[in-house]
Amino acid sequence: MSAEMHWPQEATLCEVGLRDGLQNEKTILTIEQKLRLLDAVTASGVRVIEVGSFTHPKAVPQMADTDALCRAMKKLDGVEYRALVPNLKGVQRAYDAGLAKAKLTVSASEAHCLANFKSTPVKMVEGFADCAEFAAKKGMTLSGAVSTAFGCPFQGKVPIGQVENVVEGFLKLGITELSLSDTAGMAHPRQVYELGVRMIEKHPQVRWVMHFHDTRGMALANIVMALQAGVRVFDGAFAGLGGCPFAPGATGNVATEDVIHMLHEMGINSGIDLLKAIETARLAAGFVGRTLAKKWQ
Amino acid sequence: MSAEMHWPQEATLCEVGLRDGLQNEKTILTIEQKLRLLDAVTASGVRVIEVGSFTHPKAVPQMADTDALCRAMKKLDGVEYRALVPNLKGVQRAYDAGLAKAKLTVSASEAHCLANFKSTPVKMVEGFADCAEFAAKKGMTLSGAVSTAFGCPFQGKVPIGQVENVVEGFLKLGITELSLSDTAGMAHPRQVYELGVRMIEKHPQVRWVMHFHDTRGMALANIVMALQAGVRVFDGAFAGLGGCPFAPGATGNVATEDVIHMLHEMGINSGIDLLKAIETARLAAGFVGRTLAKKWQ
Repeated sequence: MSAEMHWPQEATLCEVGLRDGLQNEKTILTIEQKLRLLDAVTASGVRVIEVGSFTHPKAVPQMADTDALCRAMKKLDGVEYRALVPNLKGVQRAYDAGLAKAKLTVSASEAHCLANFKSTPVKMVEGFADCAEFAAKKGMTLSGAVSTAFGCPFQGKVPIGQVENVVEGFLKLGITELSLSDTAGMAHPRQVYELGVRMIEKHPQVRWVMHFHDTRGMALANIVMALQAGVRVFDGAFAGLGGCPFAPGATGNVATEDVIHMLHEMGINSGIDLLKAIETARLAAGFVGRTLAKKWQ
Repeated sequence: MSAEMHWPQEATLCEVGLRDGLQNEKTILTIEQKLRLLDAVTASGVRVIEVGSFTHPKAVPQMADTDALCRAMKKLDGVEYRALVPNLKGVQRAYDAGLAKAKLTVSASEAHCLANFKSTPVKMVEGFADCAEFAAKKGMTLSGAVSTAFGCPFQGKVPIGQVENVVEGFLKLGITELSLSDTAGMAHPRQVYELGVRMIEKHPQVRWVMHFHDTRGMALANIVMALQAGVRVFDGAFAGLGGCPFAPGATGNVATEDVIHMLHEMGINSGIDLLKAIETARLAAGFVGRTLAKKWQ
């Protein structure tokens, strides 16, 4: 007997191209280019946008203008604008720039945390207590991302227990929107389904998001299995930007237009106009000197 | 509640690169090159190979040497070698060349059949009675492929009833291995699951095969949902060859190495060595002047 599949009527696409796409491109865009992209993104119908990150400008020069961008952009009613923040200073910068939402991220991989931050995932998430306090005081919303949730270049497999540690840390801070991120593009569909089911059954109150990279071509397959597990919110980046800048053609984030196309083919509404999403992808690809995937040309 | 997924322990990959891959490439390979590819394919562990087609040499010059190739190749024990045939003459050529298996194909799309053959799918499959008779007399095995089973460039959607007509026509001829082919790369995962479940429930005695092109990036997602429907046999082509020769970079058949990689990641054994499959893909890509996908370089 075959299983009863779950095809929801709707799913939500969060555009992360302005952050996770552009931060990995060699070309640094001007604020004017970013504003044009933002206009195109909202015009296509996207209602959740990650506009940039409040990281150190030397570490991520592509995002150095996020404060200025947030001040310059027109904030439309009904659209959620958020930015990635690494710490309290980032949350404060987001607040000062007028953002109502910020996303914190912690790697589930202990090896990754130790190598990059000389800390453990649990300590890192506990350290965000000051962010949660600040956000609560200022009426900001925080979301949490668990990076390397499906695998890590440093340690390979990431045990589910390590993912749960970070999830529970975020929950203790009162954060109720959590993203499981396949930072290194290592997820496979079976794993996505199993982790998704486990997390949703354990924490049904959480708004679960999944974030895939198409490094090994499995991003759409992963999204299909995430849908079956009950996930309804996915990140995507216009034109699939975010590949390694030193390997032209290397795939980055799953392309927003690919996700929208597949969802619509399956009868799942995203509220986004596919043709406009492709136009946005064309604009973004042009800005960073890439060409659009053949199928969309 | 989430569904109980079905992850089989094993799945079979049929290498169709020598036929559906090469027939769409501008470069015509020599017999020596094809023999080298065949050696690489069997060395990687593939046990089902579509070596070519017995079509008119003017229509498909890339396949004009299939007779000679079949005579020149070493046939290994335990490996199934088959060719695509369009009619009785093709079956006879396959027999004369020493093949024990031939594959007939009929388009499920009425518009496609009318445009290309001035016939209907039902009449076409009935017309294969002479092939079935010849094969039975000579002890050959026939399989059937239903092309455009998931969509057609001429008529768009293909009603399930049109697919069933062809399936039942093949069954009447005593053919028990049937492939549902996404000739135009139009299938989406939900459709694959629903058609797969319907066909398997109705005809559980058939050895069902699915054949996907990655035209729109959904081939792996389609395979995951086909696995859930109960399909256990898939076609693939080394290096994903088979894209339109006039659009460099356009994707063709789903790449064998991508399928093997995903299956193994999900704990599904294929009996094929991934590294050797990648070597085969590199060899094939080199022969037709393409480069291997970034992820496998």
